[in-house]
Amino acid sequence: MKALVFAGIRKMEVREVPDPVMDQETDAIIRVTSAAICGSDLHMYEGRTSATPGMVFGHEIMGVVQQAGKATQLVKEGDRVCLPFNVSCGMCFNCTRGFVNACLTTNPKGPGGGYGYADLGPHRGGQAELVRVPFADFNCLKLPGTPGDDFEDDFITLADIFPTGYHSAIMANVHPGATVAIYGAGPVGYMAALSSFLLGASAVYVVDRSGTRLRMVQELGAVPINFEHGDPVQQILKLRKENQLLQGRLRPGEEKLQGVLCGIDAVGYQSLDRGDPSHEKPTQVLEDLAQVVCATGSIGLIGVYFSGDPGGVDQKAKEGVFNYPLGMLWEKGITVQTGQAPVKRYNAFLRDLIIQGRVKPGKLVSHRIALEEAPQAYERFLMRGTGEGANFTKIVLKPNG
Amino acid sequence: MKALVFAGIRKMEVREVPDPVMDQETDAIIRVTSAAICGSDLHMYEGRTSATPGMVFGHEIMGVVQQAGKATQLVKEGDRVCLPFNVSCGMCFNCTRGFVNACLTTNPKGPGGGYGYADLGPHRGGQAELVRVPFADFNCLKLPGTPGDDFEDDFITLADIFPTGYHSAIMANVHPGATVAIYGAGPVGYMAALSSFLLGASAVYVVDRSGTRLRMVQELGAVPINFEHGDPVQQILKLRKENQLLQGRLRPGEEKLQGVLCGIDAVGYQSLDRGDPSHEKPTQVLEDLAQVVCATGSIGLIGVYFSGDPGGVDQKAKEGVFNYPLGMLWEKGITVQTGQAPVKRYNAFLRDLIIQGRVKPGKLVSHRIALEEAPQAYERFLMRGTGEGANFTKIVLKPNG
Amino acid sequence: MKALVFAGIRKMEVREVPDPVMDQETDAIIRVTSAAICGSDLHMYEGRTSATPGMVFGHEIMGVVQQAGKATQLVKEGDRVCLPFNVSCGMCFNCTRGFVNACLTTNPKGPGGGYGYADLGPHRGGQAELVRVPFADFNCLKLPGTPGDDFEDDFITLADIFPTGYHSAIMANVHPGATVAIYGAGPVGYMAALSSFLLGASAVYVVDRSGTRLRMVQELGAVPINFEHGDPVQQILKLRKENQLLQGRLRPGEEKLQGVLCGIDAVGYQSLDRGDPSHEKPTQVLEDLAQVVCATGSIGLIGVYFSGDPGGVDQKAKEGVFNYPLGMLWEKGITVQTGQAPVKRYNAFLRDLIIQGRVKPGKLVSHRIALEEAPQAYERFLMRGTGEGANFTKIVLKPNG
Amino acid sequence: MKALVFAGIRKMEVREVPDPVMDQETDAIIRVTSAAICGSDLHMYEGRTSATPGMVFGHEIMGVVQQAGKATQLVKEGDRVCLPFNVSCGMCFNCTRGFVNACLTTNPKGPGGGYGYADLGPHRGGQAELVRVPFADFNCLKLPGTPGDDFEDDFITLADIFPTGYHSAIMANVHPGATVAIYGAGPVGYMAALSSFLLGASAVYVVDRSGTRLRMVQELGAVPINFEHGDPVQQILKLRKENQLLQGRLRPGEEKLQGVLCGIDAVGYQSLDRGDPSHEKPTQVLEDLAQVVCATGSIGLIGVYFSGDPGGVDQKAKEGVFNYPLGMLWEKGITVQTGQAPVKRYNAFLRDLIIQGRVKPGKLVSHRIALEEAPQAYERFLMRGTGEGANFTKIVLKPNG
Repeated sequence: MKALVFAGIRKMEVREVPDPVMDQETDAIIRVTSAAICGSDLHMYEGRTSATPGMVFGHEIMGVVQQAGKATQLVKEGDRVCLPFNVSCGMCFNCTRGFVNACLTTNPKGPGGGYGYADLGPHRGGQAELVRVPFADFNCLKLPGTPGDDFEDDFITLADIFPTGYHSAIMANVHPGATVAIYGAGPVGYMAALSSFLLGASAVYVVDRSGTRLRMVQELGAVPINFEHGDPVQQILKLRKENQLLQGRLRPGEEKLQGVLCGIDAVGYQSLDRGDPSHEKPTQVLEDLAQVVCATGSIGLIGVYFSGDPGGVDQKAKEGVFNYPLGMLWEKGITVQTGQAPVKRYNAFLRDLIIQGRVKPGKLVSHRIALEEAPQAYERFLMRGTGEGANFTKIVLKPNG
Repeated sequence: MKALVFAGIRKMEVREVPDPVMDQETDAIIRVTSAAICGSDLHMYEGRTSATPGMVFGHEIMGVVQQAGKATQLVKEGDRVCLPFNVSCGMCFNCTRGFVNACLTTNPKGPGGGYGYADLGPHRGGQAELVRVPFADFNCLKLPGTPGDDFEDDFITLADIFPTGYHSAIMANVHPGATVAIYGAGPVGYMAALSSFLLGASAVYVVDRSGTRLRMVQELGAVPINFEHGDPVQQILKLRKENQLLQGRLRPGEEKLQGVLCGIDAVGYQSLDRGDPSHEKPTQVLEDLAQVVCATGSIGLIGVYFSGDPGGVDQKAKEGVFNYPLGMLWEKGITVQTGQAPVKRYNAFLRDLIIQGRVKPGKLVSHRIALEEAPQAYERFLMRGTGEGANFTKIVLKPNG
Repeated sequence: MKALVFAGIRKMEVREVPDPVMDQETDAIIRVTSAAICGSDLHMYEGRTSATPGMVFGHEIMGVVQQAGKATQLVKEGDRVCLPFNVSCGMCFNCTRGFVNACLTTNPKGPGGGYGYADLGPHRGGQAELVRVPFADFNCLKLPGTPGDDFEDDFITLADIFPTGYHSAIMANVHPGATVAIYGAGPVGYMAALSSFLLGASAVYVVDRSGTRLRMVQELGAVPINFEHGDPVQQILKLRKENQLLQGRLRPGEEKLQGVLCGIDAVGYQSLDRGDPSHEKPTQVLEDLAQVVCATGSIGLIGVYFSGDPGGVDQKAKEGVFNYPLGMLWEKGITVQTGQAPVKRYNAFLRDLIIQGRVKPGKLVSHRIALEEAPQAYERFLMRGTGEGANFTKIVLKPNG
Repeated sequence: MKALVFAGIRKMEVREVPDPVMDQETDAIIRVTSAAICGSDLHMYEGRTSATPGMVFGHEIMGVVQQAGKATQLVKEGDRVCLPFNVSCGMCFNCTRGFVNACLTTNPKGPGGGYGYADLGPHRGGQAELVRVPFADFNCLKLPGTPGDDFEDDFITLADIFPTGYHSAIMANVHPGATVAIYGAGPVGYMAALSSFLLGASAVYVVDRSGTRLRMVQELGAVPINFEHGDPVQQILKLRKENQLLQGRLRPGEEKLQGVLCGIDAVGYQSLDRGDPSHEKPTQVLEDLAQVVCATGSIGLIGVYFSGDPGGVDQKAKEGVFNYPLGMLWEKGITVQTGQAPVKRYNAFLRDLIIQGRVKPGKLVSHRIALEEAPQAYERFLMRGTGEGANFTKIVLKPNG
């Protein structure tokens, strides 16, 4: 079959590779109708992980069941399905507690398996015509409709970015009436904003520098904050202080509550130095969040931080150790949650919201392309919403046409 | 001052009564700008409680602080405020755990105080020019803006029906993607629907027979179910079974999930017998909910059930004992939550959602009238959305013009 | 193989039956080392369910894996395991949300499967030499040690009564410092008391009439309340009112808090009429709990209530409809949770508490007997702690000697 | 009156100071029967805060109400009470949500007030004969019994260390069956261990180097880990790996779960460098916890970290910025909670556990001394369980004899 193959740093190639074969009777083989490029693929693409040439990437996968193992009981050939990016078994100590992001059996290197990702186990990715799914009954989310219908763009977001954005909002304790600051308006930041409103947020501020990305979150109802126009913390505080309705509701002492209750980092360790955006400053977002989030608040770190980063800005960063404003966080009593989303905890409910027309996450998809166009698309997507990549908000590959 | 006074069953009168006076230094006196008539006032009006002639009703109160006791520290004269219908002290064992609906100090008869309500303590109601607020610092919710502005209709809903509808959705465990059946499209049912969407519901079905009321919940995005057109349980099941997208997502065995996960009773003990809507059948809604809610689901009973009802349909009902489909509920493992809303747990967040333009609950208000028009308004409102009362969706009194 | 067979009302027989065979490659066959008789077996034994002659009972099962299907990946031949009484698949909509008590795929009649129980699916019980386990990887809880060691009595409680008692305490919202009233000191009531202390309860009152049973809960630290010595509600209230330390901590108004915050019904629909304990009064416990539980409290109904009871005291009871003190519950704002325990949600943690020596639930086991002795043991156990059955607190069968 | 006064770094003096006077009618004056020295007082004593000479320390206070303001309604003269160390109003946005540790009205410098503590507002401490209590109805916890009775030592722990230790366990998500590693066996570490068992922990490991302190946690059932005997992370892992029962319960893949689920830092920014315990290494505990806590786990940081530390080991530490192993925490998906305990959320329930004899936290108290002996006691307590301070596990002052 054809697959997109990592050929080295910033180099993707379409190659013929062997078809996947059933390994266990609980596996299934999926014919891929949509496979998206994820922002986290860029970390591998740029050489910021241990990914080695020859790997097939792709953990945002959707398609049709071509073959179901003899021991499967719920999944059937012909089923339209979306796969959580986490490869999980459903029966280990972690999976049965809902932590499918930390499955103990699908990755020999540690808790948590995934498709086509460095250090997440031996599971070939889905940016290819076919992909093998372990524990298929557990992992396949059944979808209604037919491939290529109006929901195709929506459903592919269920593999990762929608539940991932949603999980970030859950980690940040977003609830009805809460106020939210989101750093990063890429796909996950967009879904974090969408999810924050789904969870009832009263106000959502999203920080980025890409005009296209900021316009898209604005369409969701969020307030765009361009960090190239000044310190985003001060911008947010100023907007809130100048709002007479917000100020008019404060009683004596409550003027200490000028920030937001919930903070989301949808950027991670590759965040840019605001003083010089041509450089990374891995703690830029953390420092901002510690300031803009109020006492009693919560922060969700969904942007990734790794313990081993070959491209870290210094030795500490290479080891995943960062300057952290712990004193301020402690004094404010802020809770920080971290880690990958347990997609299966959410994806059935999010699917139903799509089906019932309550959300339309597929609006984010800007490009639907053949595998052959993927190498260039990676280049554009790496520009993260700027320059020639401005309009590449979300790219979906169509390996089977 | 002028006040609306209960003069006997189905009889309200405007009378002069003594002005309220400060009882404790922690009290405040409020000049009432809006005081709404609540569906639960109708229970007293109809003689279904121990309310006695001479009482001033009114527990949905909003206005301006005219006098603040010397020991108050947060509330100031001139503050625009809305009062939770619960009168609570903020410092007893129940209040400090968030159960302001069960305050131990404001009602000698039992846990939970309220303004102008039978058996809820000695607190005169607010359908009057002035009202005394105990524990004013704790009870007054500060509002921005000026009396009579565009938010007046919205803010008055914060006293009771909005947080009460919201609490019903919380009790029913509504969460993103959940499905909800609400019985009753009166003010609380309307707010339950609005709140269900605020909490992320994927589908909301609302049962009533009033065309006006059903149209209003439909505008919120809910599916109206007219129980005069057939068994509402069957109507809901049929709608879901006929939806190909919903059916297309089911795997083997999941066809057992045809109802909804969340049920809300916004009717209570005065529910009508579907077989003969001219009679009450207090368990009609309970029976329906036990059927339409799926295994693992939750039910919130916000419609009131009293342990003493002079007008109960039989001796058991008079004592608050009802035929209850416990076998079915137990087999399904359903949780049932009950009781009055703890308004203060929610009202600041709901206020902020109004301020930020995320919700507009004041749309429900149909009538803004002088005290003198109130007696007739009570009559109309008693018709619960039918006949000449069809358009009386929510009535707000303006005691000070 | 040999199995205990239900031969009709109050009649059990040891018979030869066919060995179980693998049905799916995800199954396993267990050689049973311990199979306990459960109080809920008595409902079938007495003819209070649809159980038909020929059935093999037994849903409290522990043993050693004799054969593991080819598609199993975690369970191995020779593993010592305990089975949750729920038969569940681990991958349907309900199982993946943790509601293994409402599995959608293991029981054609409705949500929730079980071994050897009326209406819970086609799964033969474990009061036999061998038993087949569906979805073995998901269902088998691995145990350390060797069959017959000092933990055997403890581990067998993990199949049902320990997690079931624990679940009742969770449903009743038991937490550190909480006060608890438990009706029924049978095996589940005993485990509810043990679990209440495990969850930090400050005081636990257990109501029964069996001296043996009451002595056993007393050894756990609970206060025994013999309902033959007077109204148990009044007994509990009196004990608390006479405790000077408890009274001395109350502030004005808090004298309204004289009962308990948490109520557990470990009796169910066969509760006895206190006025005449030779008759059943299915709502006796419910009425008591509504009185003894304080406003803001919670009740867990773990004792079963069925929607179809051939032996119900009247037509309503036969259909699972009961007189229910809803008015009082509503006024107090009490939450009532119901249903079978989702054993797998708890059993790994409870096992670890046993291993680490924090609890010793096996103390409850009074009899370890051969299958041949089981028919008489059923008779004794049916006496529910009275007369000749006084010392039959928990009976464990040893089908393989 | 007499009070203990901070006279400069490592210098406390008994002096005559003016009696406290009522400031608001909601205040009360307490005659102090017990006032404990807290580990956090040592930060001020050592000059690691902005505390200035002349301050009266003391935020662990218990006594008898000598005078109650006219506007108080629940507290009465003669009441025996314990005060939460947080000074809070009970009615601001944070207090009404239960965050009394972040009260918006009692500290002009920021959220959260306290008695006798640097930067926590103008509230004189209680290491004195008398102390003024703001918002007395809200803050006073009523106690039964009489001053000096057998509960005096227990009840004084309710002011801070018991609820603080308990809060750390809550922040670390301790629950029945959970495994816990606690760094620091001082008063808060001791209470964290006691609370972990109260919350149902199956195993608790406590790290310190003081033999006395380790013996005391061992008496609670915890496993003592002396960090002078080797890397405590490796000690804990080794103990668990060598336990055959723990190993025997693991299935394939679950050997990745060798640490603990819950981590508690009861040391804070003054933690010692294990390589050279004569120096501080503020991140020593954080680094250990990141290693010993498993994927999916939680960490509670109750040991303090300040954003301004005059004695910080370097410039970053002075500003509260620390090297933080974020990469590892993120990969494991660990949640970190921080901040002061909201005492009032817990103290009534913990009091009831004492009254009912379920816990005996007063066992920790080693010294009951006059104010005059306090200066030397501070010196000894600063030795943190070593040398001449070995037996100073908890010191309670008796300002009124």
